[in-house]
Parts: sequence; C-alpha cells; structure tokens
Amino acid sequence: MRGSYYTFYQRASHAFRDYPSLSKLVVICTISGGGLAAYSDVRPFGNVYADAAQPAIKKKKVVVLGTGWAGTSFLKNLKDPSFDIQVVSPCNYFAFTPLLPSVTVGTVEARSVVEPIRNIVRKNNLDFGFKEAECFKIDTANKKVHCKPTQNNSMGGKEEFTVDYDYLVIAMGARANTFNTPGVVENAHFLKEVEDALRIRRSIIDCFEKASLPSVNEEEKKRILHFVVVGGGPTGVEFAAELHDFLHEDLIKLYPDLEKYISITLLEAGDHILNMFDKRITAFAEEKFQRDGISVKYGSMVVKVADKSITLKERSSGETKHIPYGMVVWSTGIGTRPVITDFMKQIGQGNRRVMATDEWLRVEGVPNVYALGDCATINQRRVLEDIAAIFSKADKSGSGKLNVEDFNEVIKDIIERYPQVEIHLKSKKLKNFVQLLETHQGESAKQTTLDIEKFKSALSEVDTKMKSLPPTAQVAAQQGEYLAECFNRMKECDENPEGPIRFRDSGRHRFKPFRYKHLGQFAPLGGEQTAAQLPGDWVSIGHSTQWLWYSVYASKLVSWRTRFLVVGDWGRRFVFGRDSSRI
Amino acid sequence: MRGSYYTFYQRASHAFRDYPSLSKLVVICTISGGGLAAYSDVRPFGNVYADAAQPAIKKKKVVVLGTGWAGTSFLKNLKDPSFDIQVVSPCNYFAFTPLLPSVTVGTVEARSVVEPIRNIVRKNNLDFGFKEAECFKIDTANKKVHCKPTQNNSMGGKEEFTVDYDYLVIAMGARANTFNTPGVVENAHFLKEVEDALRIRRSIIDCFEKASLPSVNEEEKKRILHFVVVGGGPTGVEFAAELHDFLHEDLIKLYPDLEKYISITLLEAGDHILNMFDKRITAFAEEKFQRDGISVKYGSMVVKVADKSITLKERSSGETKHIPYGMVVWSTGIGTRPVITDFMKQIGQGNRRVMATDEWLRVEGVPNVYALGDCATINQRRVLEDIAAIFSKADKSGSGKLNVEDFNEVIKDIIERYPQVEIHLKSKKLKNFVQLLETHQGESAKQTTLDIEKFKSALSEVDTKMKSLPPTAQVAAQQGEYLAECFNRMKECDENPEGPIRFRDSGRHRFKPFRYKHLGQFAPLGGEQTAAQLPGDWVSIGHSTQWLWYSVYASKLVSWRTRFLVVGDWGRRFVFGRDSSRI
Repeated sequence: MRGSYYTFYQRASHAFRDYPSLSKLVVICTISGGGLAAYSDVRPFGNVYADAAQPAIKKKKVVVLGTGWAGTSFLKNLKDPSFDIQVVSPCNYFAFTPLLPSVTVGTVEARSVVEPIRNIVRKNNLDFGFKEAECFKIDTANKKVHCKPTQNNSMGGKEEFTVDYDYLVIAMGARANTFNTPGVVENAHFLKEVEDALRIRRSIIDCFEKASLPSVNEEEKKRILHFVVVGGGPTGVEFAAELHDFLHEDLIKLYPDLEKYISITLLEAGDHILNMFDKRITAFAEEKFQRDGISVKYGSMVVKVADKSITLKERSSGETKHIPYGMVVWSTGIGTRPVITDFMKQIGQGNRRVMATDEWLRVEGVPNVYALGDCATINQRRVLEDIAAIFSKADKSGSGKLNVEDFNEVIKDIIERYPQVEIHLKSKKLKNFVQLLETHQGESAKQTTLDIEKFKSALSEVDTKMKSLPPTAQVAAQQGEYLAECFNRMKECDENPEGPIRFRDSGRHRFKPFRYKHLGQFAPLGGEQTAAQLPGDWVSIGHSTQWLWYSVYASKLVSWRTRFLVVGDWGRRFVFGRDSSRI
Repeated sequence: MRGSYYTFYQRASHAFRDYPSLSKLVVICTISGGGLAAYSDVRPFGNVYADAAQPAIKKKKVVVLGTGWAGTSFLKNLKDPSFDIQVVSPCNYFAFTPLLPSVTVGTVEARSVVEPIRNIVRKNNLDFGFKEAECFKIDTANKKVHCKPTQNNSMGGKEEFTVDYDYLVIAMGARANTFNTPGVVENAHFLKEVEDALRIRRSIIDCFEKASLPSVNEEEKKRILHFVVVGGGPTGVEFAAELHDFLHEDLIKLYPDLEKYISITLLEAGDHILNMFDKRITAFAEEKFQRDGISVKYGSMVVKVADKSITLKERSSGETKHIPYGMVVWSTGIGTRPVITDFMKQIGQGNRRVMATDEWLRVEGVPNVYALGDCATINQRRVLEDIAAIFSKADKSGSGKLNVEDFNEVIKDIIERYPQVEIHLKSKKLKNFVQLLETHQGESAKQTTLDIEKFKSALSEVDTKMKSLPPTAQVAAQQGEYLAECFNRMKECDENPEGPIRFRDSGRHRFKPFRYKHLGQFAPLGGEQTAAQLPGDWVSIGHSTQWLWYSVYASKLVSWRTRFLVVGDWGRRFVFGRDSSRI
C-alpha cells in the first residue's frame, strides 16, 4: 500500500520492532538489518506450520488460564510448534509486579512494566490465540473451560463461551486476602494489579487536593493525609517506603502548607515487619522507618475498615481503637480465587485451603491439568510414606537388607524425587547420603547393611525439612519455565523418560520433578536503600544494594522495551522527581 | 530528619528539580549546582514578601479559572509578587493539548504532556493557592466565584465554597460542540481532555479484544473494527492519521487475523477536510488518506449516534443512511460551557453566541473581569463606528478639514487601536496610511485636505477585514502572556499609559490592546508526514515538515521534564512501536 514510501527511517524502525534483541547489531549495521526485517514482514514464519499443504495432524490444544508470572513464563518458554495454544486472561498483558509499589507513586510508569502477551508469544512463532476473558468454570469431564468476556457486548450483556483443551494450565494467581474483615473490599486499596497501583496513585493526589480545599478544617486535613498500610510483608513495607519518599521528596514541595499534617502508619499483626527475612534486615527496616517518621504498630489486628476510620484490636490488651485515615492500602497476603475453590470441590480437594499439585505440577486427581504459581501449592510426598517402597526397590535381591552398593544405585533417584533429603543433608552439613546413614549407624556405613527399621530411623527427620514454596514471582516464573520445558520435550521424554525411578510402580517418571532454586529476595526500604537476602543467607543492606536491585530488576524485565522504559523512568525520577498530575 | 543521609546523588537530584533550566550547567559543574540548590531549599523567596515584618499591604486578589493554555500561560508569565493568586480548576495540571491525538494511540504517553500547575507557578515565587474544583457561578455583584470540588467529601456530597476576587481571569475553555445531535454524549468520544485521550486508547484496544472473541461473527468483527471520526478539522484529521498508523504499524502485527476487518471513515459535513488550510494542503491530505485507505465522506451530516450505528443525512440527496461502527470520535468544533452561558445572561450578553471581550481582553460590561482563550472572543471595534470621533480627534484646529500633518499625528494610534487597518493595508499592498488616502484621492494626498465624507469613504472597506481569532492554543497562550504582562506592569502603566489615544474620550488607554501574531499551523497527516502553513502563506508538506513539527513541539513544551519525556516517547515509538496493553 505504501511500498514506495518506505524510508530508511521506517525500515530501521521495523527492524527494531521485529528483532528487538538485535537492537545493538542493528544500530551498527542498519541497512542489512532493515533488509532482514523487510523479509520477516512478508514471511510470517508462524503460519508456515499451519498453512503447510499436507493435511495437518490435529494439534493438541493447550489452554493457559492467566497471564501473570506463571502463565507468561510458560508461554515465553514454550517452543514446540506442535501445540495449539489458547490463552484466556482478563489482562491482555503481562505486568512486572515487583515494580508495582514503584508504580503507585510514579517512580516508574505503569506502561513501563507491562508488555502485551501477544507480543511476548508471537516471538515463538506458535499457533496462538488470546481471549480477553475470565474463566469462571473448569469442566474436566468434557475437557473445556467456561469463559466470560471482560467487556460487555453491544447488548450490554456478556456472551459466555467455552474453550476445549487437551492440556489445561491453570495460572490464575490468587486474590488479596481480606480475612473477611468487614469494609476492606469497599474502602481499602489492594496492591496486586496494575490498575490497583494506578488507583492508589490517583488516590494519593486526591488526598492532597482534598486537603487543600478551603472548606476543610485542621482535624480533617490530618485525617485525610493519614496514610495507613495494613501488613508488614515485603509489599506493604516497600509501598510504605515508596510513599514516604514520594511525600517527602516531591509532594511537600508542591504542597508546603500541608507538610505538618502528613503521617504514615504501618499496621502489622505480628511482632515484626518483614518477618520472613533475616533478623538483621528486620531490625534495619524498623530502625529506618522510625527515623523516617513512619509509625509502625505491632500486634494489632484490623477488625473493621469504615470509610473514615479503621478499627483495631490490640492483641496484648484486647483493647479496641479507632484510627481516622485518608487512604488505606491492604496487603496481608493472598487467598484462593472463587473459581479455584469451586474447582477444588469438583475434584475432591474441597477440604484443602490451597489447590494441591504433585511435584510435576499436575493437579492432584485430574489428568492433563497443571497448576502453576500462586493458585496452587506443591504437595510434596513424604519419604516416610514411601519408605517401604523405596526400600524394596533398592533391595533388588529381596534379602531384606541393604548394603551400600544397593543403595548407591537409588540415591540419585531418592534425592531427585524427595528434595527434602537434600535440604536435610545440607542443614546437617553432610556431604552425601552415605554420611547420613553413617551418623545413624555409628561407625562406617560402608561395611554394614541396613534393615528397614534402621533405614527408617536414618530418614526419620528428613520430612520435617519440607517447606511449601513462598507465593512469589520467582517461584511462579520457575514453574512456568519448567512446565514449558516439559511440553517442549514431551515426545522425547515419552520415549526416554528422564525422571527418577517410580518407587511405587515400575519404570521411571517421564520428567524430573520441579525443583525451586531460590535466588534471593529484595526488600526496598526507600531513600535509595534496599535490603537483600541472597542465597546462603548472605545479607546486604544499603545504597549499594539499591544499585544491585536496579540492575537485577532491569535485567529481569520481560522485554527490551520495558527495560528501556523502566531505566528511563528511574533516570527521569532522579532528574525531575515524580509527577503529581491527577490523571 | 535525614540530614546526614544527604548524598551527592540526592543533592544533584535536588538541583535538577529546583532549577530544571540549569540542567546543562549542572551537568557540567555539579558541585556548585548542588550548593545553589541547597541554598534555594532553605530560603523560599516566595514567602519573603508575605512574612515581611511591616504590616503587609493587603494584596489584590487575582482569581484564575482554568489551567488550560490561556490560564497557564497567564500564570507562567505573571511575575509581580504584589498579587495574591488563587486558581480554581478541575485539573491540577496543564496539558499540552496539541499532542492529545498522539496520546490516543500511545505515540506519546499522557504523563509526558502534563505538568502540575503548582510546579509551573511555584517557579515565579508568587503567593499562590490552587483549588481542585469547578466554578459553577460567577457573582460579579459580590466579586466572588462559587465553586464545587471535583471530589466528593466523606459524606459523599460536595461541599461548595466561594473565592473572593479583585480581578477575575476567566480561562475555562470550551466544551465539545455536539450541535445537540442525539446520542453523541452517550456514545461518542470527544478529544479535548487528557482523560478523553486515555479513554480512546483503551477503547481502541477493547475493540480489538472484542473482535478476537470466539463468539463474534464476521459481520460483527467488521462493525467492531470500523472506526469513525466525525469532523475533518485539524484534530479529526490528525486523530484519523494517528489511528491509521497505530492500526497498520502496530496492531496488525499482534492481531494479524483481524487485518481484513479494519476500516476508518472520516465524516465531513463540508466539501473538503482541513478547509481552514491552504488548498494545496487539503489536496495533499485528501490524496494521502485515499492512498492509506481512510475513507472520507463529504457533505454528510450526522443526525444521530446510536450505540452501534451512526445515522447520516446526505446534504445533496437528502438521503438517510445507517453506518455500523465500533468506535466513534466526535471532533466538530467547540461550544460555550453552561457556566459561561449563565454568566453571559447575567451581564447582558445573553443574546450572543460567544462571550465578548474588548481588545484588552476585558469582558464587556463588567469591570475587573477578563476572559482569555476559547471561552471568549474579542469584539473588535469597527472604524466606521468611531469615524466621527477619530476625525474630530485628528482635526485639532476644529476646521472640519484634515491635512496630512494633522493626520500623521494620529496614524499610529489608529493602527494600534484598529488592527483591521493594518490588515487592509497589507492586503492592498500599501506601505502606509497616506497611500491609502491617496488611492481614494486620486493624485497626491500630501497637497490636499480631507473632509469627513472623504475620510469615511477612504476607510469604508477597512472593517471588512475584521476576523475573529481561531480557537487555538496559540491564541490562548498569547492572550495569557499578554494579560500577565499587563498585570506585571499595572502600576507602571497607571502612571504612564502606553496605549493608543482614547478617541471617544480624553487621554490614552492604559495598555496597548492585545494583538495576535500568527506563527503558522501544523496538520500532521500520519506516516511521518506533516503539512504546515506558515506565516506569509508559506506551505510545506512532507517528511521534512514532520521534523519541523517535532522540533517546534519539543521546544514549545512547558517544562524540561515534559520535553525530555516527549522526546523519549518519540524515540521509544521509533524503536519499539506503540504499546497495546489494556491499562
């Protein structure tokens, strides 16, 4: 249509967009880059598979519910073109949620942390469809999911539809947990979605504009400018810190008369904030907040959120208190979504709090359904449950005794199948399984043999080391990547299973079970200071850690575009501060 | 509070924010820059006036209604600290509206084109207050304005308040004009405010997501992806062009299956689009739109906008037609706001369509009330109305005859007071007034004298050259700057009036009347092409003009922050395209 109008400019621009990872290359040799891009424009590789002349083999349908960390990580890593992928999610984008607290105050813009899911997937050249809708029912009997569009149709209603699946990947995340506290949904802000962050940002400015009106008296000003954060976990703490910086670095310059009315309170039901972190981090954070004038109230349960005040009950005294507030942000952990609760009842998990999967992320009790991320938890099998099976598998000769050689053959499989064994070894500072047996055997295990009782007692403490994984982006992303890898190698592993021995059955598991690698966790504390707890309990706090945080987050962003934008936002904030226009 | 934590980083960052215009300087010699900034932090010059020990003279209260182009330009240029400024506006920011069409598709982000009004004004160190509220009544008898906050108070209601004034500056702009067409307000998008642009952006993505749902048939897809723009003025045309680029450069990559359903229609009631521009520009634009596949329908009036179709009446045939659409943007010019209509009735301008001011921007009929920008128009006095007064003023001797010497004394004042005289001279290619008289006198005017009849006939055509100013940002900004200059020099000019002679009175006018300088106008046409009509009817079209557009707009932005952001956005779009996440 506009062939003759193609300028150097447009070609270069296409090249960048089609091959963002080529950006550096393209900057250097733009002309060949432009050529490449033009070529890619006329031959969409993605459709080559579908359009092939021979009658296509019917592709297996993979339906993915959700485009959060787990779903997106799965989609990003799925490369096998032999699946037909359908994604259903109310968001047509992936959001880099660890930066949401920064979005609430405009340190980073919302657009900078999102990437359209279509853009992420189209790079893999898969058969891919996206539906902007919410799944409200999973029908495992007929292998379909029931969906409702997020937008009304022209009649003002919503036309429901169903999507069939061969494999279902549930990655719908969780909802904010209100513990059924009255008034929370009506009056508090959550901080889970991009839209929550945008609403909080507007709400902060609204408070300042409201307090600037001539009809507002002193007491009202104090109330309106009292910001309350409920929950002293990483999100609540980071938000409180970001809010403090925004108020004191930016807003008091524009609203100097209101400075004396501003206050921030953090409510924590326990005795410490950031209690999942090392004590040194908790202590530093508490001290810093005190210095900053952020008041932290421990041991107080919120029992009600009215439109102008929060009712607290102090755990120690049982006293009830009303605190007037202007804005409240609720960040006290996660709960199960109603659709998942319904689904759990349907598949016989009705008595559980969280949906359970096995170590391969398969939902327990239903074939071909997987669950990743915050919507499920891995129900790790105990060693002691299977101890007899393990023993008999190792005891090939059926002698009722194991010697070390018997044992060495299955050690790898045991450790792979039961990750708690490895954790136990590490915590006891033992080099290997044989040493563990030795500590229980007295002298040298190499010489002796074990019967089942001795074997049991050697492994008796192992299961206490089991821990469910935290509901973090890191876990969800690793699960998505793991499952995509399984799908990519499904055919290969069907033929050559690579998992551990099936102790209670014959043969081997098709895949290795999912194993989480903890890479550390950050807790930004404001004022360009961050605390980090890195693997090996290495703790780092301060300005240099903030730079580590900057670099890790910049590198983890999902695309070159978001990386460029977020780094730009940080620079903009550094030079010009945060914007407080009410849009 | 955090004194000891001041790092080099924070100081530098303060310096940038306090003296953004120093940015270059500060980059080069950061340490002295930091020092300067620290100094400015502890001495807010703005309050020195207010806090002075002697009993302060009661400051005159200037109330400004509106923070658009006119109001902001007034505030930005007001330097005299002897006023107490109160601003009332529903927006706590100024928006660079010429970039709104770019915001609708994400070429530029909304945040990049706004600047908090407090930030703009605080640089002038004035006594300044801002109220986020809407003025709903002007009471000239008691010199106060009645306002309603934009936010509900805690009771869910809105507590009205009043603000007193000594001088009132009305700069509330206009509303979109629907010509009372039924269904426009309910079903169409306007494009006047930042929020309109954001809504349009979401709406475009919504159309694509809706059309991607499995329950939508082919015909529905066509309807949903039919984008209609009503109004072929600069805004409508620019929006259609931006939309076309967004659809064809970005969205069809993510929604390749929908390409065949997309269409854009531009409805223009007249015979041409961009009819206020040179014919060459109109022709180029029409040709380009045809090439781009944007269908332009001329001579059709919209008589109704239903939720799924627009009803047109063709001017030539009188036929009625229904066009199904997915999204419609209404951009057919401006109308008067209800509060201004009420005010006009109150001050005896009830029979006018637009509020009238004199050439000094004073609202006719009320003292100390000024009106700027789109909410008013200058009611330029006709020469012929005043011809007797002019003649008698020039005829000092009272002889009933004017000779050229008499005349030369008042020529400058006439031209200053009646700008149409100058326009007439220019259009006739006459060098000066004497030449004009000569053309009516036959030979040489220098020798002869004029009586009143001859004088009248010489000036008879002059008033036909009067033209009201277009409702553009350029006019509004110049008016704001002009009025601020008047306020800045009010005392000075009270003593030494610098305006033209009062022909119907004695003495001189205090100020020179407002005079508009047209600097040209752009019409971006998409595909990196822009048309420009520059002063002297110089026309420039094409890619190079786009670069001119880029540089002019970048230089006109209100702050270094927005400049940095907009240029960043352009770069981002060039490299990564526009984002289509639905947030």
